[in-house]
Amino acid sequence: MEIQFLGTGAGQPSKNRNVSSVALKLLDELNQIWLFDVGEATQHQILNTNIRPRKISKIFISHNHGDHIFGLPGLLSSRSFQGDGGPLTIYGPAGIDQFVKTSLQVSRTKVSYPIKYIILKENGLIYEDDSFQVFTARLDHRIPSYGFRVVEKPRPGELMMDKLAKYNVPNGPLLGKLKAGETITLSDGQVLDGHDFLGKPRPGRIVTIIYDTRPTPSIGELAEDADVLIHESTFNGQDAKMAHRYFHSTCVDAAKVATKHHVHQLFLSHISARYIGQSGRELEKEARRIFKNTRLANDLDSYNIPMKG
Amino acid sequence: MEIQFLGTGAGQPSKNRNVSSVALKLLDELNQIWLFDVGEATQHQILNTNIRPRKISKIFISHNHGDHIFGLPGLLSSRSFQGDGGPLTIYGPAGIDQFVKTSLQVSRTKVSYPIKYIILKENGLIYEDDSFQVFTARLDHRIPSYGFRVVEKPRPGELMMDKLAKYNVPNGPLLGKLKAGETITLSDGQVLDGHDFLGKPRPGRIVTIIYDTRPTPSIGELAEDADVLIHESTFNGQDAKMAHRYFHSTCVDAAKVATKHHVHQLFLSHISARYIGQSGRELEKEARRIFKNTRLANDLDSYNIPMKG
Ligand SMILES: [Zn+2]
Ligand SMILES: [Zn+2]
Repeated sequence: MEIQFLGTGAGQPSKNRNVSSVALKLLDELNQIWLFDVGEATQHQILNTNIRPRKISKIFISHNHGDHIFGLPGLLSSRSFQGDGGPLTIYGPAGIDQFVKTSLQVSRTKVSYPIKYIILKENGLIYEDDSFQVFTARLDHRIPSYGFRVVEKPRPGELMMDKLAKYNVPNGPLLGKLKAGETITLSDGQVLDGHDFLGKPRPGRIVTIIYDTRPTPSIGELAEDADVLIHESTFNGQDAKMAHRYFHSTCVDAAKVATKHHVHQLFLSHISARYIGQSGRELEKEARRIFKNTRLANDLDSYNIPMKG
Repeated sequence: MEIQFLGTGAGQPSKNRNVSSVALKLLDELNQIWLFDVGEATQHQILNTNIRPRKISKIFISHNHGDHIFGLPGLLSSRSFQGDGGPLTIYGPAGIDQFVKTSLQVSRTKVSYPIKYIILKENGLIYEDDSFQVFTARLDHRIPSYGFRVVEKPRPGELMMDKLAKYNVPNGPLLGKLKAGETITLSDGQVLDGHDFLGKPRPGRIVTIIYDTRPTPSIGELAEDADVLIHESTFNGQDAKMAHRYFHSTCVDAAKVATKHHVHQLFLSHISARYIGQSGRELEKEARRIFKNTRLANDLDSYNIPMKG
């Protein structure tokens, strides 16, 4: 479970920061990669990573502003051209389907895989499989904007083979049942309860992605206990009025959420082009005075999310 | 009058070549820049040039394939954000207006300048002002695709001040009339015909842009006597069958047009990603055996089109 930033700038691309996109690499877990927003030239950024477009199975769109979606048609086309891609699901606000469909239709692009659209409306669970859940909540931006909380389910404990050794359980389905916490009967009549041989379950990890928004309570709900919180930080603390006027947040807002909601690692992203070089570092410094585990995200930065416990 | 290549690749961006776009800089002539196709990340390429988006007054789109249009919404948004841009006209095949309008509408982008759409249908003149004409003609691609011929009008000859000296024409409107080839009467009654005092008119320059197409006669009509011909060269001569199958041209096709139609300088662009490094140079070599003044276009290359005569 790793995140990689593909674009960490706000509004328009600059020489230093591309517009928004972040990849959540779930290669060990699902052999999939999920993207959160696809600003223009996200596919160009991907050329400088080890990401294979066909591994991208889900795309979550926070809101429809151009700097968050204009890379979608190109990425979808290239994913098709490169072949081998399975079905893809796009989660996003109303209109995202119209944008993608019109782009593909006008350009006569027939992609080689099915695209499913899930239009975000209500807060709550929008995706679940055996190992993950994804929740969304409406934020406070000029247009409908959504945050995301990706929750890894707790992993069952490992089978304690040492403790099990003396029972001579044969390799195969019986071991599998014990691992699943079931009760089995051995050929000699002994009965074993899987729970007696399982280590402690390992808690899952939580990643929260908050793009364009003013401070609002739903951010905290999505960020609670997150291992990683990626939070927009368009402005610095001094420019809080501007942040409010443009429906954005400051690095101080982000740090306060991280502190209050027991986040482990905060990344500041969606940085305005006004803060270049050293003044970008200042955003990080300012946030660290409130929440120590803060990092300024830069394009192509990676972060491996450690296992818990 | 200068051209600059913003993207010289085909189909998908690669590390070496972005998808299609070329700028025709008419700064001395009109204080304007015209773009021909706007592949994704054209605005990113522009960050590495001296082009100011507000100077871009006309955009010509050859055809609606994604690698030729997906950079439009982002460029138009950034041009608006940066302010000061006057009206903009987009010339392109049917559907281009729908693509742009949907992109701007879904992303709630209200650009700060009017956009006019001219939908290409018939071959012929599509634009004319005091100093330029633009002609288009339908090419032969899988979907409707158009080539462009930009013709600079001949510039009137300079006033020969030496020859005029003895007549003591006062500075001001009378001189202007002579310059325009009119006949004037001096205060002492002498009659002067402007034509007697004008040097030879300077012929205008011609730039022809041929994007995606198979060889077809209309290419030659657009390319006749061009100072610069930018011609797609997706494949090399050996891969001519593939070029035909995919409705494209080879470097040999391009060189033949340049020879037959008395072109001065040929640029090969829209190069497939299969020809990287040295094999790109091979396209150029192969074309040069047929037409010596051939250059392989690379991203950000510039070429100043010399005056004639
Ligand atoms: Zn926004
Ligand atoms: Zn094409």
